[in-house]
Amino acid sequence: MLDYRLLEALSAVIETGGFERAANRLYLTQSAVSQRIRQLEHRLGQPVLLRTTPPRATDLGRRLLNHLQQVRQLEHGLIDDTDSDSSMAVRLTVNADTMDTWLASALADCPLSERMDFDLVVEDQEIGLRRMKNGEVMACICAESQPVNGSLAIPLGLLRYRALASPAFIERHNLRRHRDALLHAPCLIFNHDDRLQHRFLKDLGLTEPGRTHRCPSSSGFMFMAQAGLGYGMMPELQVEEALADGHLIDIQPGYHLDVPLYWHYWQTESPAMAALRESVTRHARRILRPAD
Amino acid sequence: MLDYRLLEALSAVIETGGFERAANRLYLTQSAVSQRIRQLEHRLGQPVLLRTTPPRATDLGRRLLNHLQQVRQLEHGLIDDTDSDSSMAVRLTVNADTMDTWLASALADCPLSERMDFDLVVEDQEIGLRRMKNGEVMACICAESQPVNGSLAIPLGLLRYRALASPAFIERHNLRRHRDALLHAPCLIFNHDDRLQHRFLKDLGLTEPGRTHRCPSSSGFMFMAQAGLGYGMMPELQVEEALADGHLIDIQPGYHLDVPLYWHYWQTESPAMAALRESVTRHARRILRPAD
Repeated sequence: MLDYRLLEALSAVIETGGFERAANRLYLTQSAVSQRIRQLEHRLGQPVLLRTTPPRATDLGRRLLNHLQQVRQLEHGLIDDTDSDSSMAVRLTVNADTMDTWLASALADCPLSERMDFDLVVEDQEIGLRRMKNGEVMACICAESQPVNGSLAIPLGLLRYRALASPAFIERHNLRRHRDALLHAPCLIFNHDDRLQHRFLKDLGLTEPGRTHRCPSSSGFMFMAQAGLGYGMMPELQVEEALADGHLIDIQPGYHLDVPLYWHYWQTESPAMAALRESVTRHARRILRPAD
Repeated sequence: MLDYRLLEALSAVIETGGFERAANRLYLTQSAVSQRIRQLEHRLGQPVLLRTTPPRATDLGRRLLNHLQQVRQLEHGLIDDTDSDSSMAVRLTVNADTMDTWLASALADCPLSERMDFDLVVEDQEIGLRRMKNGEVMACICAESQPVNGSLAIPLGLLRYRALASPAFIERHNLRRHRDALLHAPCLIFNHDDRLQHRFLKDLGLTEPGRTHRCPSSSGFMFMAQAGLGYGMMPELQVEEALADGHLIDIQPGYHLDVPLYWHYWQTESPAMAALRESVTRHARRILRPAD
C-alpha cells in the first residue's frame, strides 16, 4: 500500500507552491518534506515533481494527487458519520464572476457549511478544469459541460451578461448614434482569455476592439465601467444596483449573452460533498437563469 | 545600438506568457518570434529567457525588459507632445483591495486617462514589486515604502481595516462574550500571505486562527463575511454600505489596522505618467486616511 504521508507531502508542495510553505503547513522542516518527496520517487522509480518555481507535478505526480483527492473524499465520508465535531477542507475552483456574485450565499445555504473550511481558487475555466483533472480540487464551477475523467458535471443555470457603460461614457463616445464608435472607445476585458466583449462586437457586425483596458478583477471591472473608463460585458447579477441607480446603462438595449455554468465533481464524492452539491445546485437554480 | 524589435519580441513573450500569444500580439508568425529571441541571444551571447511554461526571463532578460520599459516611457514623453491622437499603454500592478475599492475613480480622475489603455495586474505586494523590478510595469501600488532600483515611492495614505462579521455569525459563535471563541470560529483569509487576521488575533492576545476559509477575491471576501461564513479584516472603504445596513458589524468595536499604501514609479517617467501619478496621489489623499 502507498505511504500516504509521502503523498500528503507531495500534495502540500503543489498546493502551496513551494517546499518551505509545504513544510509550514505540515509542521515539518523543509528537509523532511524534501526527504519525503525523494522517498516517494525512490519507491516509484520515477520523479513525481519538477523542481521549478513553483514546483509542478509530473504525469505520475498528477495521477497520485488525483488518487489522494479521491481517498480524502472517501475518508471524509467516514468521518462525517462518526465524528460530528471535526471540520473538513473543501477546495473548489470557481470562475471570478461566480465568486463575486452568487457563490457566497450558495455556500452558506448548505447546512453542512458550518463544518466546512472552504479553500477557494479563482481561475479561468481552462486552468480550473486542469486543477480538477490534476486532483487538486474537489469540485469546480465553470462554463465547460464536459467532465474530466472520473468526474461528472451538472448544469447550474445561465449567467446573463449585458453590454454596459456609464451614461457619460456613452455620451462622450457617441455610442448610441454611431455603432462604429465602439471600435474606438476603450473596451474593458478581464484578461487575455475573456472573449465576451469580442462576441458582443461580432454580434453587432463589428471587428476587434481598437482599445482595451485589462482589469483582472470581477468587481474592479464594474468599478472601471462605473468610473467611465470603458465599456464591457457584466453579469446582470452584479450590476442590479448600478442599473437601478443609472450608474450603468445598456449600450445596446435588449442585447445579452448567456454563459452556462456547471458544477464538476468526483464520482467518489463524500456525503458532505453531495450535500454541498445539492445546496449549491438548488441555490444556483433559484438565482441563475434556467438553461433551455 | 540594441535592436528594439528583438526586445519587443522578448517583452511580448514574457507579458503574454507564451510564444503563440506573443505572435498574435505582434502580428507575426510564431517562428518569427522564436527567431527574434534567438537572434537577440546570439548577439548578446547569453540566453534571455528560459523555455518553461510560461517562459521566464533570465537575469539578462530582466535587465533588458527593465531597460525597454524605461525607453518606452521616454518615448511616450515625446509622443505626448507631438501626437495627441494616439493612446498609450499603462501597465500597473495594484493590490486587490485597492483594485476593488478606490482605484477606478482615481484613474478616471486623471484628465489624460481618456488617452490611456490601462493594463492592470492584481498582485500581492511581493510579486507586484518584483514585476516593477523586472521592468514589466510602469508603476505599482502596494504597502512597501522602499523603492526598487531606479524608482521612487511616494505615500498615498492609509487603508483602514476593521474586523467584521455578520450579526448572525457573531451571535452563533458567541464572539462578543467569549473572546477565545475567535480561535474556533472560521476566519477568512485572502491567501497564504494575508496576515491581517493573524495580526488582529495577536493584538487581542490570541494565537493562530483554528479554522480558515481561503478566498482570493477582495469583493468575494466581503460577500463570504456577509453570508455569515466567516470573520475577517476588511477595508472600511469597501464595507460602508454593509455597515450602514447592519449586514456587517465590528467584532471588536474601536479596533482597526491601518495599512500604508505607496505609488512606486520610475525616475524616468513620462509627462503622462507624471500626470497620472499626480491625479492618483491627489485622489488617494482625499479618499484614504492621512499617514501621520
